[in-house]
Amino acid sequence: MIESKKPDAYVGTAVPRIEGHAKVTGAAEYVHNVRLPNMLHAKIHRSRVAHGRIVAIDTSAARALAGVHSVFTGEDVLRIIPDPYYGPAFHDQPILALGKVRHIGEPVAVVLASDPHVAEEAAALIEVEYEELPAVFDEVEALKSRAIVHDELRPAGTFPDLKHLKGRKDTNLALDFRLRRGDVEKAFAASDHVFEHTFKVQPVMHTPLEPMLSLAEPDGDGIVIHSATQMPSFVRIEIARLLGWSESQVRVKSGLLGGGFGAKVYIKLEALAAALALLTRRAVRVALTMEEQFYTITNHAATVRIKSGVQRDGRLTSRHCEIWWNGGAYADIGPRITQKSGFTAAGPYAIEHVHIDSYAIYTNLPPAGAMRGFGVPQLVWAYESHTDMIARALAMDPLAFRQLNALQEGQEHATGTVMRDAAIPQVLAELGERMKWQQPLVRSEGTIRRGRGIAIGIKASISPTTSVAMLNVAADGSATLYCNTIDMGQGSDTAMSQIAADTLKIPLQRIKVVRADTAVTPYDMGTLGSRSTFHMGHAVRLAGEDARAQLQAMAKALELPADTSIGDLFRRKHGMSAGNVIGVGNYTSSYEPVDPATGMSRNITPYWMTGGTGVEVEVDTQTGHVRINRLVSVADAGKVINPGIIATQLSGAAIMALGGAMTEEMQFSQGELTNGSLAYYKIPGMHDIPRVIENVIVESAQQSGPFGAKGVGESASFAVSPAIANAIEDAIGVRLTTLPLTPETVFRALREAEGRPLAKD
Amino acid sequence: MIESKKPDAYVGTAVPRIEGHAKVTGAAEYVHNVRLPNMLHAKIHRSRVAHGRIVAIDTSAARALAGVHSVFTGEDVLRIIPDPYYGPAFHDQPILALGKVRHIGEPVAVVLASDPHVAEEAAALIEVEYEELPAVFDEVEALKSRAIVHDELRPAGTFPDLKHLKGRKDTNLALDFRLRRGDVEKAFAASDHVFEHTFKVQPVMHTPLEPMLSLAEPDGDGIVIHSATQMPSFVRIEIARLLGWSESQVRVKSGLLGGGFGAKVYIKLEALAAALALLTRRAVRVALTMEEQFYTITNHAATVRIKSGVQRDGRLTSRHCEIWWNGGAYADIGPRITQKSGFTAAGPYAIEHVHIDSYAIYTNLPPAGAMRGFGVPQLVWAYESHTDMIARALAMDPLAFRQLNALQEGQEHATGTVMRDAAIPQVLAELGERMKWQQPLVRSEGTIRRGRGIAIGIKASISPTTSVAMLNVAADGSATLYCNTIDMGQGSDTAMSQIAADTLKIPLQRIKVVRADTAVTPYDMGTLGSRSTFHMGHAVRLAGEDARAQLQAMAKALELPADTSIGDLFRRKHGMSAGNVIGVGNYTSSYEPVDPATGMSRNITPYWMTGGTGVEVEVDTQTGHVRINRLVSVADAGKVINPGIIATQLSGAAIMALGGAMTEEMQFSQGELTNGSLAYYKIPGMHDIPRVIENVIVESAQQSGPFGAKGVGESASFAVSPAIANAIEDAIGVRLTTLPLTPETVFRALREAEGRPLAKD
Repeated sequence: MIESKKPDAYVGTAVPRIEGHAKVTGAAEYVHNVRLPNMLHAKIHRSRVAHGRIVAIDTSAARALAGVHSVFTGEDVLRIIPDPYYGPAFHDQPILALGKVRHIGEPVAVVLASDPHVAEEAAALIEVEYEELPAVFDEVEALKSRAIVHDELRPAGTFPDLKHLKGRKDTNLALDFRLRRGDVEKAFAASDHVFEHTFKVQPVMHTPLEPMLSLAEPDGDGIVIHSATQMPSFVRIEIARLLGWSESQVRVKSGLLGGGFGAKVYIKLEALAAALALLTRRAVRVALTMEEQFYTITNHAATVRIKSGVQRDGRLTSRHCEIWWNGGAYADIGPRITQKSGFTAAGPYAIEHVHIDSYAIYTNLPPAGAMRGFGVPQLVWAYESHTDMIARALAMDPLAFRQLNALQEGQEHATGTVMRDAAIPQVLAELGERMKWQQPLVRSEGTIRRGRGIAIGIKASISPTTSVAMLNVAADGSATLYCNTIDMGQGSDTAMSQIAADTLKIPLQRIKVVRADTAVTPYDMGTLGSRSTFHMGHAVRLAGEDARAQLQAMAKALELPADTSIGDLFRRKHGMSAGNVIGVGNYTSSYEPVDPATGMSRNITPYWMTGGTGVEVEVDTQTGHVRINRLVSVADAGKVINPGIIATQLSGAAIMALGGAMTEEMQFSQGELTNGSLAYYKIPGMHDIPRVIENVIVESAQQSGPFGAKGVGESASFAVSPAIANAIEDAIGVRLTTLPLTPETVFRALREAEGRPLAKD
Repeated sequence: MIESKKPDAYVGTAVPRIEGHAKVTGAAEYVHNVRLPNMLHAKIHRSRVAHGRIVAIDTSAARALAGVHSVFTGEDVLRIIPDPYYGPAFHDQPILALGKVRHIGEPVAVVLASDPHVAEEAAALIEVEYEELPAVFDEVEALKSRAIVHDELRPAGTFPDLKHLKGRKDTNLALDFRLRRGDVEKAFAASDHVFEHTFKVQPVMHTPLEPMLSLAEPDGDGIVIHSATQMPSFVRIEIARLLGWSESQVRVKSGLLGGGFGAKVYIKLEALAAALALLTRRAVRVALTMEEQFYTITNHAATVRIKSGVQRDGRLTSRHCEIWWNGGAYADIGPRITQKSGFTAAGPYAIEHVHIDSYAIYTNLPPAGAMRGFGVPQLVWAYESHTDMIARALAMDPLAFRQLNALQEGQEHATGTVMRDAAIPQVLAELGERMKWQQPLVRSEGTIRRGRGIAIGIKASISPTTSVAMLNVAADGSATLYCNTIDMGQGSDTAMSQIAADTLKIPLQRIKVVRADTAVTPYDMGTLGSRSTFHMGHAVRLAGEDARAQLQAMAKALELPADTSIGDLFRRKHGMSAGNVIGVGNYTSSYEPVDPATGMSRNITPYWMTGGTGVEVEVDTQTGHVRINRLVSVADAGKVINPGIIATQLSGAAIMALGGAMTEEMQFSQGELTNGSLAYYKIPGMHDIPRVIENVIVESAQQSGPFGAKGVGESASFAVSPAIANAIEDAIGVRLTTLPLTPETVFRALREAEGRPLAKD
């Protein structure tokens, strides 16, 4: 209405990515490319024992190597940071080991040199003497083990719900989330059938192709940190806390990321880089190799036990879920995963009696944290395998069984939150349609057997969280968008520009996105949990509306027609092209705290994510090899901002989940990683990609979303592994309950089913 | 009221400069220190004729030199910018000469190389063949000369008041500002006395100690420019105009400047750097030597003729001022100086009949532009010499004469603007007090003669202009100030932080100032004309008030007491330290357009600046050497934000003006600069500084200013030169009407007065 030339509406159209050209021409700037003047490179010496007291560290040989600038240990860090323990939920992780190490690969000392190769060579010369302590690696064992990873629990002071844990001793249980709805024991007794199964999920790595790195440089009485982070605002707050400084003294810059997937959230290398920069008063770069990432953060390995009561007609009456989350040596965000994913452990089903016990557990493995789906894929692996096993036992069609029990609009979820705009029935229906579920699958004889499977999962968004955006409209009607959302491949710069353009009613090309820089771009909780489209989308929309209101007020004050172009408006006001209008949008999602007695809340999420997967497989009974011929992802995206980007998001999530389902596994022997290299740790390659991938968007407007949109970045990752396991059972009649579904696992299970098991090696 | 710990009030106290520590430790970052990856250095080949047609440019020897990357001429620039003429008032200045050169030293071609020394050597190898044209150098002659500098006038389209000049031919008169109040001829005829004098001002250079430089690098479909500029917002708009791009595609970063003084305003090297970066798709650095600045921008040399009618009692009745501004070869901001300073050419006096003719004139000298005072020092030189000459002729005390005629509060200025908060009588009174004017000066006999003099000048702020500021308050109560005001030594970062701290009621130490970056910091007209304290001060105040209102609303919504600390407020809202509040302030000064018939307006300025100078001198009649024993600067600062910084501002302005008064002069021979080096061009050194410098602030609140403040950066520069000339006449009875007041000039005038003039060499 202000701009005379009416632009097209961008929201809903497959606008090409605005950063695409820079990426394909190699011009895109990643943090990986940042070089600071007079920079030192840091290389880390890591623990070789899983649990032990540090008796002595001999750095003399490292120091003596020509070209070494300095060597630092945990004791040196204390000169800068008296209490150098960080973490989003617990302040339990030292910047460099202090007194003790808790997992193999833990950073113990750091060498700095102008030449990174010199630093690496010197790091290998450091000798550490340990007094070894008993260690524990399995999450279920850890609860009864005498090997105690942390002497005392140190929950972060900021979370009131963790305060009661402070100072707890002699336990590896960091957090115990309990949900109590109804009375499952009574309901089990009254059920026609009760099923109980246990499932296992292996540890895997996020494998961003740009490995983690952080650079820091002192800046007057402050510090500037360049970090490949998904959470610049959090890094700023946490570094300021560690240093005892004001937030305004800490400047955190991020950039385009070469993948994040939850690996680059909270603090990873930033505190170490900051401490080293302040110790040396020099710029310092801490960059991991691809392999070092294995020791830095993993997903949560987990054991999930589910017990369900079912009536003869297939109705689920009751469910008890127990989840043991293997958090590794440091809590990272594990306790929040335990709680937030714990909410939805019972699945997308209407069940009257639900008990959930979700345990965040310390072990002597590398720390586990957030990974695409924030615990939900582990849960869906369990509950959707369980679902098919029940349906099969009851001789019911697995789709019909799901449809019978699916949560409907307006029904109450186990937590007490009423379902709104969660397209569970629609996703199931679409899955049935796309998989042609009503037509029998053409089966094959011989050694190659065909099967198909489906699965569905839901996720609640982390809440409450805040996003703030600014839109600065220049006198020529072009605009700059300041937003901390990190474009790490998901296309957020494009989506946010679409929202800004439509709100301001200007052409998309006239919007420039400013990269995250906490001295510049306002607060955002982080780019994670599929929260940005909803939260930052709202903030950008509000900023645009604020700017437009100001432009309209300008037009009114100048007595100009409402359709005056922005350029003319400023020229008329200033007599020349001059001035700015700045719109601000500040959005916080709603949430109701959990009742500590029941673990329930009437509002656990601003929106629900629903993702379903269908697969058709061929299993080679002679080798155990599973080929996936077709993979259908169906996701509820609310109203779509950019269908082109969503399609590639769904493919990406499904393929990443496929890696975890089929091939990826960090293999440990007494806490020691035995395949810590991409030569032995197999991520999906071109030959592992399904022949046919279909991405289906169920567009059912999220009433509360910006333009009706919601997040979808994780949705296609939820249900891949159980859909495949379900298809394998459909093909060869064998049920697998442990991930990954490697040929060996399938072949062993087949032989076991035939009564001639293979010996374990 | 939000922050429980009540901070001190900062406004009005001499807080130390916040950037001081970085400056004295060498940590402060200047644009001069910016190095971009893979950067090319540009060196300029300059015209050796004052006016000529370019017949041929031979770049072959330059291209052949080992290490040269490329050589470009004006024709190459056309590939990037079809109409490569820039300028704030006229689009008359080509990025590199096109077809013609108009002054010696004009950029004709550029060599790029990775090594600046190679580029410099190659630039000297370029051969240009010219067909010389008649040239003109004197501003008065230029109006009747047949040497025409520009074939056709090209006023910038953005100024409606310049439109009528478009396409005007065969003239060197770029702009003719006329003010007509009353009827001076009739009033002269009715006056008891009529005095007419003509004064001359020489060309001088700004001499910032960080010479001008700009760097540019392509950035996707945009460009990033790092420039030592006082006007990042203008550079952005003008570069976008030249390229035909959106403002949002052009990012301009400035930094701390090593002095500006008006040399670094509008476009200087930015367009050239941008064109070269786009031609090469590489980062390019264009940095001038100290000496090259002489060819880039100077002050306006000027001829000023003043004719005044006076009554027997000393009352001024009428005045006609004619000013010929020597604009050099390109208009730059000269036409605006002609007009804006033209307004006050009649001085701080109440005169009923005033005619002003102020001419912006093209000549074949280097371009003249803004320099500390924006034309006012030239005018004050003339009208305050004239004032003393009249008082002397009438045998009146020069202070009493000024006080008799001074404009009083509520009186109408020649333009028709009513005087508000202009402390002219107070500055005069203070000057009399400090100079002990009522006591006779102790005179000396012999060859060293003592004298004293005073002078006073006023300036109207350029108006209307806009400043926008943002204040981002973090969850811990620290804040980031985004503002485009450039701290180039005047202490604006400190002053703006004081305003922000007092408005937000937080400690000053918790405010971080973000350096100018048009992708980040919002629009500001520029750091010039002593406008920032008033305009940006208002914007920062408004931004702080906006943020506080939001914080108060937050407290209210959370039902928290009004004295809850900001940190607690955010923690209570988010359950953790998270979130931001962003305040925006957008301030435009008021103005009423000039009546084209009379050149008058009822509102030419949001505030008046008044500066007076008093000096005591000793003149050596044997050598003509003038020693300044005492220099008193008195300025009206409104209510003072930071008295410590203002004192050094006044000293700085006075000493800079002293250079122009006493020693500095660019000497030309047929358009060729003959002393283009600091070895021969004398700026004040330690021995030239007056033994006693006193800075006196007349604190008379500017009602309309932020915290009652107004600008003062130029005020002590207005009246230095006439105060000295008046003191010289007081000492030795000789009147000088041409600057600078060198020993030779004084000695020649003495000899002439004695009837035995020296021969001119």
